[in-house]
Amino acid sequence: MCRALVAQTNPSKLKGPLVSAPHLDVLGFGNAIVDVLARTEDDFLAHHGMRKGGMTLIDEMQAETIYAAMGPGVEISGGSAANTVAGVASLGGRAGFVGKVKDDPLGLIFRHDIEAAGVRFPTPAAASGPATARCLILVTADGERTMNTFLGAAQNLEPEDFDEAIVAGAAVTYLEGYLWDPPPAKQAFLKAAGIAHKAGRTVALTLSDAFCVDRYRAEFLALVREGTVDLLFANETELKALYQTADFDTALAALRQDAKRAVVTRSENGALTIAGTETVAVPVFPVASVVDTTGAGDLFAAGYLHGHARGFSPEESLRLGALCAAEVISHMGARPERALKELAEENGLRV
Amino acid sequence: MCRALVAQTNPSKLKGPLVSAPHLDVLGFGNAIVDVLARTEDDFLAHHGMRKGGMTLIDEMQAETIYAAMGPGVEISGGSAANTVAGVASLGGRAGFVGKVKDDPLGLIFRHDIEAAGVRFPTPAAASGPATARCLILVTADGERTMNTFLGAAQNLEPEDFDEAIVAGAAVTYLEGYLWDPPPAKQAFLKAAGIAHKAGRTVALTLSDAFCVDRYRAEFLALVREGTVDLLFANETELKALYQTADFDTALAALRQDAKRAVVTRSENGALTIAGTETVAVPVFPVASVVDTTGAGDLFAAGYLHGHARGFSPEESLRLGALCAAEVISHMGARPERALKELAEENGLRV
Repeated sequence: MCRALVAQTNPSKLKGPLVSAPHLDVLGFGNAIVDVLARTEDDFLAHHGMRKGGMTLIDEMQAETIYAAMGPGVEISGGSAANTVAGVASLGGRAGFVGKVKDDPLGLIFRHDIEAAGVRFPTPAAASGPATARCLILVTADGERTMNTFLGAAQNLEPEDFDEAIVAGAAVTYLEGYLWDPPPAKQAFLKAAGIAHKAGRTVALTLSDAFCVDRYRAEFLALVREGTVDLLFANETELKALYQTADFDTALAALRQDAKRAVVTRSENGALTIAGTETVAVPVFPVASVVDTTGAGDLFAAGYLHGHARGFSPEESLRLGALCAAEVISHMGARPERALKELAEENGLRV
Repeated sequence: MCRALVAQTNPSKLKGPLVSAPHLDVLGFGNAIVDVLARTEDDFLAHHGMRKGGMTLIDEMQAETIYAAMGPGVEISGGSAANTVAGVASLGGRAGFVGKVKDDPLGLIFRHDIEAAGVRFPTPAAASGPATARCLILVTADGERTMNTFLGAAQNLEPEDFDEAIVAGAAVTYLEGYLWDPPPAKQAFLKAAGIAHKAGRTVALTLSDAFCVDRYRAEFLALVREGTVDLLFANETELKALYQTADFDTALAALRQDAKRAVVTRSENGALTIAGTETVAVPVFPVASVVDTTGAGDLFAAGYLHGHARGFSPEESLRLGALCAAEVISHMGARPERALKELAEENGLRV
């Protein structure tokens, strides 16, 4: 039964007999972060000089100042790629995560939650050094989130923190752009991409956010152009930032030249995937009300990657992505509350 | 302006010239707890031998076992009386809290959240001893919650942990029945009741839950009959447990004999208050959908106590209670997400 499933869902079969069946559908590399969410007003963001909708890196002192000023919070495990692999597991996919926490209470919460979501998390916790990362997320009435991240232990993810075998055994290795911030994590990122390609696997990258793109535009473009990345995820704002244009079509045309395949999410305008001259687009999946957009992109990626890893068509993968994004924006927090496999089945989607 | 407000809303004016204007509307005494909420199935409760809908005290080892088995969680400050005073503050009332945390990360979260809610929290944290209390809450699909509480630092609340002045200056001192579990907290409870009465204030008690009533029936009855408690809060189940009867009317008739005033909540059947032969009842406040009933009773008490402290009529106070309960059951977590003052004003309720 289990064997049959692996054979049936192995997307690497197309790549020839040297590639073995993957042990994981998706392995995410990312910053291991616990989110602290609080509702706020636009005035609070302005008063603290925050860029609405963006992610700003802060140090421990800034984290304390903002935390003291913000309202009552809800603590919930987060991190972009970690949210994505939790989504993959909720779809019934085999998921793993590589990222660094400290052996402290927030680190224990992070480990509990990702393992309880059904994700393998073999990275050992740091015994010393900075505390587990936290992201102070201010949610305004329009459901928009403004993030302030203290990276802490997450920035000490190193190439030694994972085994070659786990990467080689994953159909897709998914890397978050945010990893480019801490230098050792960047090295881990490049090592993982090398291993994945040597094993005939797919390397995917999300641009993470427009300010992250501003920080590393040349490097991200090189990763895509040189083929280090096979599958790029971006939202409209990030894509425009990548090509420094206000015109979506211009950016999309440039992306067609540079990327093997890309998935672009456009908020209420749905999403599309392009590969050369091919374009497949889907509309958004309807939601009763948008409560908190945190995790929308992460969960869209979960649905698409799950489909991709299992050899579904681009359209099927996009539809799964839209469904997962719809679930996560209908409540507070960036990880699914419903079992996504069940939700997909209820909506007649292949999963 | 502020002076005028105090004079206008001082319920103790009726008690004669020796009683000074209160500095707080409601001062809550309770276990200082951080909740860890996770969704689950009925099977999980059965497998772990949990009483659905109840609160069970567990030790640190049991807490670790249950936490390891339960799904991904959301950490959010809780505690019954603490939820209530957060509700009072959200209504624009002046609220305070007395309860014990440890000087650890969960303790810092608890302090941040209650202070950010606008509640005075002068109790010092313990520097040593057991960790800050946590309550592992399993939420089933019907919105029912099953609670497993590791009391930790909370059980070391002592009579020395608060000043006489803060109790004497509160219009209502509100005590949770759960405080009867740890012996030093019980002493703190009795000391506070004595101070409150000496200052001409109201002492209120919630029975907390039916199993808590089973543990301390005789003592709770004595508190009510001997006048240590002026205002008793109970839900239907707790009331039946108090008088060991399956018949609501029998229990209510007994309560009329014993209590100066009581507020009884009846889930979807609304709530009532009785004092001697007087009965005032209100229906529930309608909600779109019940997401999580955690905190329903706590927030009902918040609305009623706020009204009581400000000298509103029993009916006005009940309506405020129903509104607050409706808000808190429409989302996960036991503290209000909306500003309750605004919500009350939108619904034409005096606040």
